[in-house]
Amino acid sequence: MKAEIISIGTELLLGQITDTNAQHLASELPALGIDLHRITQVGDNCNRLVDALKQACERSELVITTGGLGPTDDDVTREAIANLVGEEMRVDAEIEQWLRSMFQKIGYEMPERNIRQAYLIPSARAIPNQRGTAPGWWVEHEGKTILAMPGPPGEMQQMWEIEIRPELKRKLSGEVIISRTIKTLGLTEAKVDEMVSPFLSSTNPTLAVYAKLDSIQLRLTAKDRERSKAEMMIAEVEKELHKILGFAIWGYDEDTLEGLVGTMLGERSLSLATMESCTGGLLASTITDVPGSSDYFKGGLVAYSAEMKAAFGVDATLLSQKGTVAPEVAAAMAKAARLRLGADIGIGVTGVAGPDEVEGKPVGTVHIAIDAEGKRSALSTQYPPRRPEVKRRAVYSALFKLRQLLLDWE
Amino acid sequence: MKAEIISIGTELLLGQITDTNAQHLASELPALGIDLHRITQVGDNCNRLVDALKQACERSELVITTGGLGPTDDDVTREAIANLVGEEMRVDAEIEQWLRSMFQKIGYEMPERNIRQAYLIPSARAIPNQRGTAPGWWVEHEGKTILAMPGPPGEMQQMWEIEIRPELKRKLSGEVIISRTIKTLGLTEAKVDEMVSPFLSSTNPTLAVYAKLDSIQLRLTAKDRERSKAEMMIAEVEKELHKILGFAIWGYDEDTLEGLVGTMLGERSLSLATMESCTGGLLASTITDVPGSSDYFKGGLVAYSAEMKAAFGVDATLLSQKGTVAPEVAAAMAKAARLRLGADIGIGVTGVAGPDEVEGKPVGTVHIAIDAEGKRSALSTQYPPRRPEVKRRAVYSALFKLRQLLLDWE
Repeated sequence: MKAEIISIGTELLLGQITDTNAQHLASELPALGIDLHRITQVGDNCNRLVDALKQACERSELVITTGGLGPTDDDVTREAIANLVGEEMRVDAEIEQWLRSMFQKIGYEMPERNIRQAYLIPSARAIPNQRGTAPGWWVEHEGKTILAMPGPPGEMQQMWEIEIRPELKRKLSGEVIISRTIKTLGLTEAKVDEMVSPFLSSTNPTLAVYAKLDSIQLRLTAKDRERSKAEMMIAEVEKELHKILGFAIWGYDEDTLEGLVGTMLGERSLSLATMESCTGGLLASTITDVPGSSDYFKGGLVAYSAEMKAAFGVDATLLSQKGTVAPEVAAAMAKAARLRLGADIGIGVTGVAGPDEVEGKPVGTVHIAIDAEGKRSALSTQYPPRRPEVKRRAVYSALFKLRQLLLDWE
Repeated sequence: MKAEIISIGTELLLGQITDTNAQHLASELPALGIDLHRITQVGDNCNRLVDALKQACERSELVITTGGLGPTDDDVTREAIANLVGEEMRVDAEIEQWLRSMFQKIGYEMPERNIRQAYLIPSARAIPNQRGTAPGWWVEHEGKTILAMPGPPGEMQQMWEIEIRPELKRKLSGEVIISRTIKTLGLTEAKVDEMVSPFLSSTNPTLAVYAKLDSIQLRLTAKDRERSKAEMMIAEVEKELHKILGFAIWGYDEDTLEGLVGTMLGERSLSLATMESCTGGLLASTITDVPGSSDYFKGGLVAYSAEMKAAFGVDATLLSQKGTVAPEVAAAMAKAARLRLGADIGIGVTGVAGPDEVEGKPVGTVHIAIDAEGKRSALSTQYPPRRPEVKRRAVYSALFKLRQLLLDWE
């Protein structure tokens, strides 16, 4: 089944918001065997929206829209669909009653303009919205399906998950497209690309390489009428990729480094503490993004200045000899964090986040050290000199290093 | 001038990447007086791309594409444009020479497939790419302009800024669309909406309300042939909005709370320290996202457990009486951070980030305290129970509170 998405809202065309709705829906459709051919973003203009809907319906069997279902004059989706199918809108008594009860619940009289949200046409049935006052429209017309959903991502996602996806699943039984993402760290994108180049020309499964801050990712996508066959095709190529760059692979699909490291610490009953300079707390914050991290994360210290590092237990003589940006200082920070906060493992990160160089060291210089009783690990590296990127990359490198140490933990 | 954007890449239709290019360009066009009517995302399929280009050229004078300029068979943008204008592609000797020299510089032989990036048609001129091997195409054909740019955001943005935007500016002298964003905190979106409702129906300037984690934003957008007139229209409404909710406004446009607070601390020669529980380092990390924050940020402590809070100087009796999630504990954390780290101001944040409740307190509970010599401020609140959101909102509330304290600082 061919599908198109139309995202509606002038703020999209002004670049004021990102169209996360289209991306979310796009990522959902392959598993239903729906082939997305196009995404279109249009403004809050009824005539242009009618045009876009008409063209989409000419090309595809399924058209999904988001946005334009609010109560104001700007919200033209209902009007445009009614115009397209040539039907008149009427207030639906049942929806009106539901709407009025929604407002009553929060202690308000329903503003009269909200009555627009109770409009319906004969070809449409209302799709319940559990998070807002805008019901969706499920329209069947001349063999085409139009699904109109509200724009706020929370409302849209819940409507999709609860009301629409299960229904579409029942209606469809076509090709399944499945994807597998393999995450690596430590190699450049070009290097990964080169190493897997024999597979890049494959058409089913396809292989693509993407660069992210936490990983260079390999994405395998396979298509078949049977899920098990698609899965097998992916498994075969995945095995080959493992032979080529298994050493750099740290995770799959939704895996995060902080999540994996958290699990490994838990399994080994080990605790962790951090002392950060250039990452300024982002390492601790990333570690504690994981629910349950309080079980293994003892605490963190953020020490920007030499004085604060010394106050937190880094040898002052070392600091005056080496400055604040040096591998030895990272090692001393890791050890001090471990001892001060009573953890099994300490991580120290120091470097130059920018925009200005520090002690003659260029922006992007980062020293990472991990310290445990009888075990040590370190990494000194150089990132592209952009402050937010230096911070994030340093955090992921530190977690990757920690993962390596934990893998070999006896 | 009417324009459309076409973003090219199958990964967009699979929901695997966000189309940040379209958003970036969309946000750039208003200042040039270019009216963006539509954004379309299509896959790496030549026929469908030709269709999309043809339709876009029928509706608009300017069509901007991103993606599909790489060296592989998947990269069909050049071919599609050649097909659309009915011209044949030839290898351009000058581009070929430049390409080969690019590869030579990094010590590689140019792979033969890269010769595709030297293709040109008579109606196109190559647009230099300083960050990659894919030149853009500037096509003028039957009164329409097609600009083809590479997909990697870094390459695209640099090409846009250096090569395309200045040239478009010279060619155009039309209507200017300008925007002004006003950022508030402390009121719900619905409340802000209600307070500014008389202005929501205005068509020039338009007013829209958006909810973000750091603010409820009001966005004014005005259109005129003269920039000064558009600016005046915005200034007039802005004045009215100030009368209505000036107390909640904390910034404009690109302002961030961490940036504003940093400037205020600098101006008052005050230093800052933090002790965080539920935000896990995100407050320190957000504060240190600001270049130069080392001038006023003394350091941060991340204390997840009661023991660690006590080790960092919070009274153990208080902790055993009140538990870890209480306004009194936030106040003690703020004071301990200030005294331990020798800062003028301390911030303490404790709460329940989730997913599980703590000591009987529900997920989303947050207590924030600010402590300075002779000054104090506190906030206890309840956020929607989603871990990442609780962390971010707590950070912004803490910074907003700090800003209020600094505004009244003698």
